Amino acid sequence: MSGFKTIDLKDIAYFQSIVGEDHCIHNSNDLDEYSRDYTEDLSFMPSCALLPKSAQEISKILAYCNKKIIPVTPRGAGTSLSGGALPVHGGLVISTKRLNKVLEIDEQNFFVVTEPGVVNEDLRQKLQEKGLTYPPDPASKGSCFIGGNIAHSSGGPQALKYGSTKEYVLNLELVLPNGKIIWTGANTIKNSTGYNITQLVVGSEGTLGIVTKAVLKVIPALQEKILMVAGFENATDACATVAPLFMKGLEPALVELLDEKGVALAVEAKGLANPFPPGKSFLMIGYDGKNREQFMDFCEQTMLVCEEYNATEVLLADTAEEQERYWDIRRSIGEVVKLKSIYKEEDTVVPRAHLPAVIQKVEELEKKYGFEAVCYGHAGDGNLHINILKQDLSSEVWENELPKAIRELFEVCKELGGTISGEHGIGYVQKQYMDIVLNQTHFDILKGIKNVFDPQGIMNPGKMIDE
Amino acid sequence: MSGFKTIDLKDIAYFQSIVGEDHCIHNSNDLDEYSRDYTEDLSFMPSCALLPKSAQEISKILAYCNKKIIPVTPRGAGTSLSGGALPVHGGLVISTKRLNKVLEIDEQNFFVVTEPGVVNEDLRQKLQEKGLTYPPDPASKGSCFIGGNIAHSSGGPQALKYGSTKEYVLNLELVLPNGKIIWTGANTIKNSTGYNITQLVVGSEGTLGIVTKAVLKVIPALQEKILMVAGFENATDACATVAPLFMKGLEPALVELLDEKGVALAVEAKGLANPFPPGKSFLMIGYDGKNREQFMDFCEQTMLVCEEYNATEVLLADTAEEQERYWDIRRSIGEVVKLKSIYKEEDTVVPRAHLPAVIQKVEELEKKYGFEAVCYGHAGDGNLHINILKQDLSSEVWENELPKAIRELFEVCKELGGTISGEHGIGYVQKQYMDIVLNQTHFDILKGIKNVFDPQGIMNPGKMIDE
Repeated sequence: MSGFKTIDLKDIAYFQSIVGEDHCIHNSNDLDEYSRDYTEDLSFMPSCALLPKSAQEISKILAYCNKKIIPVTPRGAGTSLSGGALPVHGGLVISTKRLNKVLEIDEQNFFVVTEPGVVNEDLRQKLQEKGLTYPPDPASKGSCFIGGNIAHSSGGPQALKYGSTKEYVLNLELVLPNGKIIWTGANTIKNSTGYNITQLVVGSEGTLGIVTKAVLKVIPALQEKILMVAGFENATDACATVAPLFMKGLEPALVELLDEKGVALAVEAKGLANPFPPGKSFLMIGYDGKNREQFMDFCEQTMLVCEEYNATEVLLADTAEEQERYWDIRRSIGEVVKLKSIYKEEDTVVPRAHLPAVIQKVEELEKKYGFEAVCYGHAGDGNLHINILKQDLSSEVWENELPKAIRELFEVCKELGGTISGEHGIGYVQKQYMDIVLNQTHFDILKGIKNVFDPQGIMNPGKMIDE
Repeated sequence: MSGFKTIDLKDIAYFQSIVGEDHCIHNSNDLDEYSRDYTEDLSFMPSCALLPKSAQEISKILAYCNKKIIPVTPRGAGTSLSGGALPVHGGLVISTKRLNKVLEIDEQNFFVVTEPGVVNEDLRQKLQEKGLTYPPDPASKGSCFIGGNIAHSSGGPQALKYGSTKEYVLNLELVLPNGKIIWTGANTIKNSTGYNITQLVVGSEGTLGIVTKAVLKVIPALQEKILMVAGFENATDACATVAPLFMKGLEPALVELLDEKGVALAVEAKGLANPFPPGKSFLMIGYDGKNREQFMDFCEQTMLVCEEYNATEVLLADTAEEQERYWDIRRSIGEVVKLKSIYKEEDTVVPRAHLPAVIQKVEELEKKYGFEAVCYGHAGDGNLHINILKQDLSSEVWENELPKAIRELFEVCKELGGTISGEHGIGYVQKQYMDIVLNQTHFDILKGIKNVFDPQGIMNPGKMIDE
């Protein structure tokens, strides 16, 4: 999109009058961190980054930008893997890092009111002290913001049993591009009062406005947990084990998949002993409940299912410490892969029984296009993260051939009833593939909705459906 | 809205060419059933009702109506309590009753693909045979259609633990007003691929298009259930008991509220012995699980909480037969109230700890405006159905004074963090109150979205936000 105004000194002066000089960054050295998120090695320099403190400040800034047609990229912690926080048209970045207060924990009604710049894990800690929890737990939970989680409907291992972010968002305070402020819903779980604007904003990747407060459902803290770790000779066996777990009536809280490459990289980078059983592919299967009696029977049956699908060995991690050894490895795979090589991260999702077909397609594509991939993710949800390593691939292959491989992969996911992003969003790097899952009619509806909220197209331009 | 074309013989001939003469109703006697739903005593005669058999037929009909600007009211089983199926601008009714097939039960991936004209309970029966269930269970489950449930995001007692319709809809085949057909999502629970059109259509009350297929999440069948029934001297005590149940860490599957008047009417109409304990207000508290050990401890603690809030007596219904005696009464209250008097049904929802304040407001309004109300509903969700009886109120009071009382009630719900409909929708009879919960900015967004899908305004006109 063209026609955006370039930020000049008069604009800067206005922004400073709203947020104060200290919270208006326009020196190019200090702007560097706002030029990237966690996506590949991509970087786009903004002209200015603002750190407002309130919805009212954001309202004034957006109203100004809307009038002047200055592009605005909202930013949480910058942990996006799809380029959601990249200011691809330059202009202004608005960081929510100073909107970092948990405003209210309602212990009677099981909801929390929070600002968007609160770190996921910090919110969970505060709730834990009250005997409550907020289940969505992305791998980046130690740094990612609740606002970013809402922007992408982030998941995490616990999404299998408890649902992803979208299942927890009840009500949002949203500053629209024209500076007006609405609350999208009510502080209730049930609500049949007009179109569901709350769920339209969840997963909208900052393209409709900026969330400045969120009312999130919480649940009683999860008291007892157990983790089983099974090794398999190949990913097809591991994936084939997943659907039968559910069909036997077991109720796993999580079923994560890892491969040998990811585990080896993490173990090496962290200088740890490898706690995993023998094999090339692994499942981490968790149960939780109020007491252990609720899931010990499930564990025994899980053992039998794993054996039926040729598990090499099944280990039981009983204590929180033992479990954390595995989680530490699981959660760090993304970052250790990044240390090894630039990579493209795909976030495929299919009905879980079709995971073996996705894995087989990845293996076929590795041979056909000559790349190496590290695969892991939320197998119980059919949500597989495929990290395609650049390593010594030429720029020509990386830029022109890889997109063909990714397109082939996504087409298979679509045929299997799935789609191209389960929890990372479309952002900048996946938008070229949206035609696989949206026909023109569907695309026009998305465009129409964007236009209702943001007729000037200033909010996070160049993302999701924007050329 | 004016400017609609009146249906003439040429239009009828066209409709007959699409659906066949037998499925095109335009004789005024046969049209009577299409003139009303379950809302008060309201009736609006359409010119024609069609019973198409496929998305393709509906596509042709809508494209034609869109071109000619003929108003279209989609209709499921006609059990709406907010006038959702009333053809308030006449024109065409499209019934989904012949789209009545369950197309696929995917036992590996836990979803079902169904047409919209399937009766809720029939779907549940079919799933039960496979060891699966679809939790949303409106009181009208024996007759209401899945399509209507989707249109209103219907709930039911089990919504407390398992969520309402919106939590189960994964993907929808939608015929747009211009006749084009889209699938709104994917057959996966996780999905971060563009704006959530699926959840925009859920609860949209047939104003955006006609759903012709739905992919719904299912879960393992609920094997063991127990029901506790507690009596209280007044509704305030009964309502005050609700939030503490959750705060003690209990996990009830349902918490229903009934009053003495509703129970008496149902018992009398059905010629039953009254199984309820002494009192003027009652809670039905249910637990479920894989085995009884999971909830027997909860039952004991529930007993203590009820006693703490002055329960007269707490009964335990152990067998399915005993439980059904209570459910039969609970579910029939709506229809037995209707036998006694025309009534206005309000569907208030607030955070559950605020229920006593809603009950007190109802009692205050009863005195102030001189009406009698029967109150019952889903207390655990803070979702109270308030049936305001007409009885011998004058038309003047009924038409001009009652709306003031309802407005006062809804304003209190809004102040308490709630809203004006939890599960029945806005439809025709509640739209006059939408200004209580939507400011002009929010209203304009809803109007804008409607316009993206339905620029000619033919889909279910006169509903929700349409003047």
